[in-house]
Amino acid sequence: MELWFTEQHTPNVRFSLKVDKQLFTAESDFQRIDIFESEEVGRVLVLDGRIMLTERDDFIYREMLVHVPMCVNPEIQKVLLVSGSDGGSVSELLRYQSIEQIDLVEQDTTLMRACREFLPLASSLENRRVKIVVCDPLKFVRSKVASYDLIIVDPIDPLGPGEGLFTKEFYGLCFNALKEQGILVNQLEPPFYDAEQFRRSYSRLAAAFPLVRVYQLNMPTFPAGQWLLGYASKNLSPTQVEFRRWEALNLQTNYYNEAIHKASFAVPNYVLESIKSKE
Amino acid sequence: MELWFTEQHTPNVRFSLKVDKQLFTAESDFQRIDIFESEEVGRVLVLDGRIMLTERDDFIYREMLVHVPMCVNPEIQKVLLVSGSDGGSVSELLRYQSIEQIDLVEQDTTLMRACREFLPLASSLENRRVKIVVCDPLKFVRSKVASYDLIIVDPIDPLGPGEGLFTKEFYGLCFNALKEQGILVNQLEPPFYDAEQFRRSYSRLAAAFPLVRVYQLNMPTFPAGQWLLGYASKNLSPTQVEFRRWEALNLQTNYYNEAIHKASFAVPNYVLESIKSKE
Repeated sequence: MELWFTEQHTPNVRFSLKVDKQLFTAESDFQRIDIFESEEVGRVLVLDGRIMLTERDDFIYREMLVHVPMCVNPEIQKVLLVSGSDGGSVSELLRYQSIEQIDLVEQDTTLMRACREFLPLASSLENRRVKIVVCDPLKFVRSKVASYDLIIVDPIDPLGPGEGLFTKEFYGLCFNALKEQGILVNQLEPPFYDAEQFRRSYSRLAAAFPLVRVYQLNMPTFPAGQWLLGYASKNLSPTQVEFRRWEALNLQTNYYNEAIHKASFAVPNYVLESIKSKE
Repeated sequence: MELWFTEQHTPNVRFSLKVDKQLFTAESDFQRIDIFESEEVGRVLVLDGRIMLTERDDFIYREMLVHVPMCVNPEIQKVLLVSGSDGGSVSELLRYQSIEQIDLVEQDTTLMRACREFLPLASSLENRRVKIVVCDPLKFVRSKVASYDLIIVDPIDPLGPGEGLFTKEFYGLCFNALKEQGILVNQLEPPFYDAEQFRRSYSRLAAAFPLVRVYQLNMPTFPAGQWLLGYASKNLSPTQVEFRRWEALNLQTNYYNEAIHKASFAVPNYVLESIKSKE
């Protein structure tokens, strides 16, 4: 028997992975959760039918989510991670000794349990520097003022249960929750298949922060193979960085390097056009 | 009835497009040729089961294949295009008034006829500055010495009929066929799914030219969504460019811009690792 998982990138585009074994499937209060093992890309986490991560290429996503802001401000000590139960971003953040506390907010306890059982990096959540808060992220962030150096809004689909995390209101709350040198990074779906969705997410982020930039990475198992992340800050430019300071930390990386850091902020004309349009 | 085209990126990874209508199918002396119409990405050219281009994202490929070398040396006058019957690169090259002659070498006349009938940009091959040579590219290049300013080796699979175009011998002949300021660009399959193939192609190119660099682009309909191109030259660095000269030409582009030009030469660590290995 052959078992294949198929994601519909659009109604007319499909991406399929051969499945070795289904490991977990459940319908939580928030979403459908699936984890399977594949020969090509290792374990795969799927939420509501969409690939959230594969063991093979997740290093690209988590390195770009974490090292870009950490290189801009190596003095980051307190981090808020909205979602991220898979442990990828947490394990990457924990490599920095300077980080004292990571608050991870996740409301889906079924997802957390599944990740802990089947995704190796989720064990990083047991580190003493990680504080897990089971709570609606919007409510949690509302109670915070000038508390964090970095907020990472990890893979959550703007059309799924994470919808409230792609609003002006949420970004405004994050702005307040950040300290003066604070940085927020979040995911923005690339505009190739759905320029409208990208434009909307971007313009909401841009409405909440004075300094907003987009940076890109290649994710082989994501739709269109390209992913865009939003970088928002009160005053720290993402491209004026002292790279030597980061290099002195001597962290080995598989994707991220100085040239990639700078280059990731270059975006094609067709993406720039989407950004220019107003909501 | 639903009709779907499926490309096997690997035995375990499939990419599928919904087909509106099959327009052409034939087995030529060199390869299986298919052209179909799709709602999502327009017309699609498939050779031996692999997508060569789609109308929707081909602009990315042809802009990066053409404008990068043209920006490095805007005085390019004579161009050799190995393959490229679809007309994408030719139409992009013809935007430069400075280009006097484009020699297009293609041995598959069935492919040429199919492109002319079904791919709109193939009409650019009728321009008086284009000279079509039906011939084995290896034989053709062998007879040329210091004849071209630019050689573009357009999408040809290293495992298909284009195998001879990924050899040290071919690259050496191209070196001889180029003038002193000559540039060669060619496609290098990205290393995500097959690092070995990439490494082999790269090292052969590097053996023939003193200056070789890799640059990348995002191709939504290509495997892993990322594509790598090789840039080889006798002495022109691809990153030391006078961008103002190119900008003065006032060519509108959809992907390419100054920041993208520079950024495309930044490659992830895992790609750099592949390059470092020796054949």
